[in-house]
Amino acid sequence: MTDPVQSLIDDLHAEADRDRPTEETPEVGIVMGSDSDLDVMYGAYEALTELGFEELTDGDDLPEARFTFETYVVSAHRTPDLMDAYATTARDRGLDAIVAGAGGKAADLPNMVASLAYPLPVVGVPVQEKSVDSVIGMPTGAPLVAVDAGKSFNAALSVVQMLARAYPELEDRLEAYHDDLRAGVGRVSRDLHESGTDAFRERR
Amino acid sequence: MTDPVQSLIDDLHAEADRDRPTEETPEVGIVMGSDSDLDVMYGAYEALTELGFEELTDGDDLPEARFTFETYVVSAHRTPDLMDAYATTARDRGLDAIVAGAGGKAADLPNMVASLAYPLPVVGVPVQEKSVDSVIGMPTGAPLVAVDAGKSFNAALSVVQMLARAYPELEDRLEAYHDDLRAGVGRVSRDLHESGTDAFRERR
Amino acid sequence: MTDPVQSLIDDLHAEADRDRPTEETPEVGIVMGSDSDLDVMYGAYEALTELGFEELTDGDDLPEARFTFETYVVSAHRTPDLMDAYATTARDRGLDAIVAGAGGKAADLPNMVASLAYPLPVVGVPVQEKSVDSVIGMPTGAPLVAVDAGKSFNAALSVVQMLARAYPELEDRLEAYHDDLRAGVGRVSRDLHESGTDAFRERR
Amino acid sequence: MTDPVQSLIDDLHAEADRDRPTEETPEVGIVMGSDSDLDVMYGAYEALTELGFEELTDGDDLPEARFTFETYVVSAHRTPDLMDAYATTARDRGLDAIVAGAGGKAADLPNMVASLAYPLPVVGVPVQEKSVDSVIGMPTGAPLVAVDAGKSFNAALSVVQMLARAYPELEDRLEAYHDDLRAGVGRVSRDLHESGTDAFRERR
Amino acid sequence: MTDPVQSLIDDLHAEADRDRPTEETPEVGIVMGSDSDLDVMYGAYEALTELGFEELTDGDDLPEARFTFETYVVSAHRTPDLMDAYATTARDRGLDAIVAGAGGKAADLPNMVASLAYPLPVVGVPVQEKSVDSVIGMPTGAPLVAVDAGKSFNAALSVVQMLARAYPELEDRLEAYHDDLRAGVGRVSRDLHESGTDAFRERR
Amino acid sequence: MTDPVQSLIDDLHAEADRDRPTEETPEVGIVMGSDSDLDVMYGAYEALTELGFEELTDGDDLPEARFTFETYVVSAHRTPDLMDAYATTARDRGLDAIVAGAGGKAADLPNMVASLAYPLPVVGVPVQEKSVDSVIGMPTGAPLVAVDAGKSFNAALSVVQMLARAYPELEDRLEAYHDDLRAGVGRVSRDLHESGTDAFRERR
Amino acid sequence: MTDPVQSLIDDLHAEADRDRPTEETPEVGIVMGSDSDLDVMYGAYEALTELGFEELTDGDDLPEARFTFETYVVSAHRTPDLMDAYATTARDRGLDAIVAGAGGKAADLPNMVASLAYPLPVVGVPVQEKSVDSVIGMPTGAPLVAVDAGKSFNAALSVVQMLARAYPELEDRLEAYHDDLRAGVGRVSRDLHESGTDAFRERR
Amino acid sequence: MTDPVQSLIDDLHAEADRDRPTEETPEVGIVMGSDSDLDVMYGAYEALTELGFEELTDGDDLPEARFTFETYVVSAHRTPDLMDAYATTARDRGLDAIVAGAGGKAADLPNMVASLAYPLPVVGVPVQEKSVDSVIGMPTGAPLVAVDAGKSFNAALSVVQMLARAYPELEDRLEAYHDDLRAGVGRVSRDLHESGTDAFRERR
Repeated sequence: MTDPVQSLIDDLHAEADRDRPTEETPEVGIVMGSDSDLDVMYGAYEALTELGFEELTDGDDLPEARFTFETYVVSAHRTPDLMDAYATTARDRGLDAIVAGAGGKAADLPNMVASLAYPLPVVGVPVQEKSVDSVIGMPTGAPLVAVDAGKSFNAALSVVQMLARAYPELEDRLEAYHDDLRAGVGRVSRDLHESGTDAFRERR
Repeated sequence: MTDPVQSLIDDLHAEADRDRPTEETPEVGIVMGSDSDLDVMYGAYEALTELGFEELTDGDDLPEARFTFETYVVSAHRTPDLMDAYATTARDRGLDAIVAGAGGKAADLPNMVASLAYPLPVVGVPVQEKSVDSVIGMPTGAPLVAVDAGKSFNAALSVVQMLARAYPELEDRLEAYHDDLRAGVGRVSRDLHESGTDAFRERR
Repeated sequence: MTDPVQSLIDDLHAEADRDRPTEETPEVGIVMGSDSDLDVMYGAYEALTELGFEELTDGDDLPEARFTFETYVVSAHRTPDLMDAYATTARDRGLDAIVAGAGGKAADLPNMVASLAYPLPVVGVPVQEKSVDSVIGMPTGAPLVAVDAGKSFNAALSVVQMLARAYPELEDRLEAYHDDLRAGVGRVSRDLHESGTDAFRERR
Repeated sequence: MTDPVQSLIDDLHAEADRDRPTEETPEVGIVMGSDSDLDVMYGAYEALTELGFEELTDGDDLPEARFTFETYVVSAHRTPDLMDAYATTARDRGLDAIVAGAGGKAADLPNMVASLAYPLPVVGVPVQEKSVDSVIGMPTGAPLVAVDAGKSFNAALSVVQMLARAYPELEDRLEAYHDDLRAGVGRVSRDLHESGTDAFRERR
Repeated sequence: MTDPVQSLIDDLHAEADRDRPTEETPEVGIVMGSDSDLDVMYGAYEALTELGFEELTDGDDLPEARFTFETYVVSAHRTPDLMDAYATTARDRGLDAIVAGAGGKAADLPNMVASLAYPLPVVGVPVQEKSVDSVIGMPTGAPLVAVDAGKSFNAALSVVQMLARAYPELEDRLEAYHDDLRAGVGRVSRDLHESGTDAFRERR
Repeated sequence: MTDPVQSLIDDLHAEADRDRPTEETPEVGIVMGSDSDLDVMYGAYEALTELGFEELTDGDDLPEARFTFETYVVSAHRTPDLMDAYATTARDRGLDAIVAGAGGKAADLPNMVASLAYPLPVVGVPVQEKSVDSVIGMPTGAPLVAVDAGKSFNAALSVVQMLARAYPELEDRLEAYHDDLRAGVGRVSRDLHESGTDAFRERR
Repeated sequence: MTDPVQSLIDDLHAEADRDRPTEETPEVGIVMGSDSDLDVMYGAYEALTELGFEELTDGDDLPEARFTFETYVVSAHRTPDLMDAYATTARDRGLDAIVAGAGGKAADLPNMVASLAYPLPVVGVPVQEKSVDSVIGMPTGAPLVAVDAGKSFNAALSVVQMLARAYPELEDRLEAYHDDLRAGVGRVSRDLHESGTDAFRERR
Repeated sequence: MTDPVQSLIDDLHAEADRDRPTEETPEVGIVMGSDSDLDVMYGAYEALTELGFEELTDGDDLPEARFTFETYVVSAHRTPDLMDAYATTARDRGLDAIVAGAGGKAADLPNMVASLAYPLPVVGVPVQEKSVDSVIGMPTGAPLVAVDAGKSFNAALSVVQMLARAYPELEDRLEAYHDDLRAGVGRVSRDLHESGTDAFRERR
């Protein structure tokens, strides 16, 4: 019987050795400690999709989009060797940044991925409130940046802000996204102000 | 397409320039970071209404009441320019005090409104328990006063206490409100004491 | 032997009965639970003095300043009757607002003073970090506004913001104070920026 | 119109002046800040009833039991004068100890009752977890003893432990109550041990 | 070699068997988990001494005072058998109440002593802030009352409040102690108020 | 009437005196403060069963498995004498290690069992989040090791890790358990990666 | 008299209008809420200097280094207009990323700068432990990434990781820095292991 | 230039391949994240030495003691490959258990070592209070047991308790250590009790 973890490790190393052109590799990696984290980490999927990224699976077709991302479950405590392989091959597999989420009080995955994938930037997502301290608390010399508990959407926005230094078209997408958000606030504010509190609440 | 935020900003500045008599301008401004805060901030509406204030909307009719208030959604992080316009025009638009509420751990709206609307007094309402620290934590020299999480009703009472220094009729309304509250406690206490615990509980 | 607490209570009631003109009574009362709180509460003294208020003592001379304040130690737990007398006579003794500070986890003084002096506005000052919850946590219908732990300076600024609704000259003093504060930031910022970090630090 | 709070205050003073024999007065007073605290404070009722106390209401019949208790709602912040009357008359009305419960972060009722009813012993019950600090945090010289959040049952047991110093029959009742409790643990333990975990769980 | 713990246990049982008259036995027991807790627990000694109690040692002379207390170090985790002997003999050795203090997060001593000495009332003293939860958190049916971290002085006052139900002369001592405390507040308050803040501070 | 607790205590001492061969005695003891803790403590049962242990009840048949465990309810505060008997007889009854769980803020059971059963290793399970501090906070010299709140499954795994030092076959079982766990992560990770986020989520 | 804040604002706008080539503008901006934050924020200076960046002051000479940074004090609450000018001109003044630090519980500066400078990436540095929540707590749609309290060194490393996406030579510098750090751990580990604990400690 | 980390990794693998007899290999490994943790982790050294263990260094002489331990610095975030080598070779290098300590909020070392060295038992030592959550918070299936912050002494005692299952002479040493500790409590208790509080305190 094949070991499913070892086969993933082998694939990651094979991919790192293929030396693909940057257009064919994902810019962003999304990893999480368990598939039970997926509902929280789905925000990163939504943000990237909103900004025109497509997910690169090992399925049949390559995405048409210029910018892509990949998604894995990697457990620091149950599969430390898979985590090691994922993170140490990240740069060679073409990634520019990683969004890493984990729950629990000992949310070690983002921290260990940041240490192993260094110098790639890693944005840590505490999947639960109680994971914040563990994710944010890196010692001097071991960089990781974090967002608030559950804010995987913002983590992905931040990653795109980083990439926009090198790819100006991403800056335009970020602006367009923000203009929509801002217009929404403006419309709600006028509605509340002009309708009055009671009329506004009834209508909701 | 018009920018809904810019159009609100323009309206605020236009209003500030109109130089209306104080009877036609709202004494109290209620602002909140998102319309999802409205259920919590509704307490401020209730308290002001209870004390005879009416809401000034941009609808057709001016309220008949001598004392009025206005309500806006203003997001510190998604519409910082609207927040700036709201707060810096507040005094010229006739406001005497502001009740500002925001949720999340980074509940910056009350603090920034207090800084921008200075020297108008601002009462900050932490919309969630986790917003308390962020709202109350102003540095020396930057005044803001706060109520407890969710206590927008008390925030509005406090604002009326402040206004009552200049408008004595408001003091009478505050007393009348309090007499009712107090009588309610008295009636319940006698009922519990005379009925006994079990009879009182059954009847509820 | 006279009871020192009863003699204070008698004086407070006598003062309340004198019905002095508002120019001869203090606008602001500063109370604290113990004289060990005085170092923290001194900020309120500093802010009021900075804004041209003078302290009204029972000494020989009336202050020349138009706006004055008074200072007392009142313990909720050791002298509840003195607290009652202080707060229930506050309005009749001419006060417009009270700054009340207390330490410990059961910092009841500001809350009880706010309840007893109602409808006068009371700004609560938690003297220690652990006093914040107790000061801010008033139930619906019992208004009190709070500042952060130790921020008695801001509490006094807020009180003057309230008074400025009725006394416009106070608004000018608040502006002048703030302009100084702001200019200081500007000067430091330019110095740091133009000198560079190392040169700036060495000079400090 | 009569003020319901003043009429209670008058009754409390009248009762204090009646100088009844100790057999006709309640040994224990139960007070709470609001009738919304009653579900939590019901534990004190249960414990006293369990130990043979009866509630003394102002209804028609005097209880037959030798030991009795009374129950009131008293709000520190909405009816400070009622609280004052309740606590300062407590000893003259025959009480030996008070169980006082309050909720919120500013749970001042137990503390103020302890200060006003001194030297009667007062057991404070934090009605919510967030009330614990406020209840327990009394300064040196102002005694109050506390139980954990919601543990009004234990508060009443403790009060009976105190009374048992003077009334030995109460000690026997405390022993009998405890023997039952202890036997229950013994029976469950043997059942679990002999049935095995799965069989025990299925049967529940 | 004699086991110093066993010899203490033997002495406690011997004392319990002697059946001394109540005048010759200590009313109050003070126990602590370690002699490193003594500085904090010294407050209980001070309060009892202030109220006329004397310490009963195993030295030559019996104290002259009518009310006495004893002091022991008893470690729940290092000498559980000594703790058991201390607490289960407490009633037979004549104690009316126990003040038990312990530090650390697992401050089990007060809780275990309360369980073992039941139905004697036990006042728990958390020796450190981090000990509060462990001391106060007893389950329903297992009574213990607690004071705030470090407040052994108040714990002893509370114990005397309990004893005063049976010994009225203790009530007078409690009143006298409190009158002094209260007079001190009155004198300081007048001094601050009449001297003014600056003069008062300089003099300190 | 027999005292159910005393009869358990008698049984425990009788068992300790029987001096059975180690094959007939349980290696692991599971104790909890209340049967309401059983849902949380069931994880220890599951882990031991998963690793081939069987529960030794006082029922008819001895388990066939080489390694066994026993389960008891023992309350530190309601049955301290049962706790004492359970822990002090543990070694003589053949136990090699104990998993002890308790809830509440004063979760004293694991700590006291560790002190009384010393030098047997005890793994403490905080049954609620608020029990963690009380369980973990043992003073220097009184060893206890703890797992996170609710992690009784891990507590049992840790106990088997300890036993595996003496019984190498247990090491193989631990490896086999872990291989399964690890393979599960591998399969889920490949499925998510190859299906893509949306397809994976829909299928769940 | 010139307003020192307005003159800084004017300079910032003038700089934004100059449209300098990217080689002459700073890549990284360091801002802090007060010069009292400088000791904590000095870590960002150290990290950037360590990686070959030079500080761009308004002094005489342009730095020779290819990569530069600038430093300002900007107070959200005392100079909101300066903060606005700083952040909204950041992109036009050539910045690629900002490290923003603030202290206190209401550490609004990083958050507001992130909102105003969007879509530039901003790394927030909580200057005190109590600032962490306020810095990290941004709502969905308003990206900011944070480091732990005081970790300005790591914030600067993270910013360089971001820039390294566009400037590969920075990646080499990051690697070189890390190799040194890592070698230091190796040397210490061997020293401790080979010397033994006591010899190693004595030598320190 | 040799990489000091790689050379350590090579040594660890070489040692694992040597297949030494168990008498020549250390039973216990002590690892910590930084040599700045050594003062806290020194407790483990003290406990093992107290119980007759000797430290095995790479120095000239093999210890004479039957039981030995080794000490390393291993940083999870700066040297993840060294941590991997240390933990995955642990069993083959003869270790029976590991005491792993780390500080900071992201104290990942104990957790990762436990995952990588599985099924060896690992006792985690949070070097700071803020490290507790991160150390204790392992997910189901990934066992680690923890002691309280700074309690490395107890961690080592616990490890010896585990080893005593296989080596009965260690149980005797544990008993002897405990008898001393216990006798110390007994002597202090009698001294305090018989001398009286004041005499005892003076003498200290």
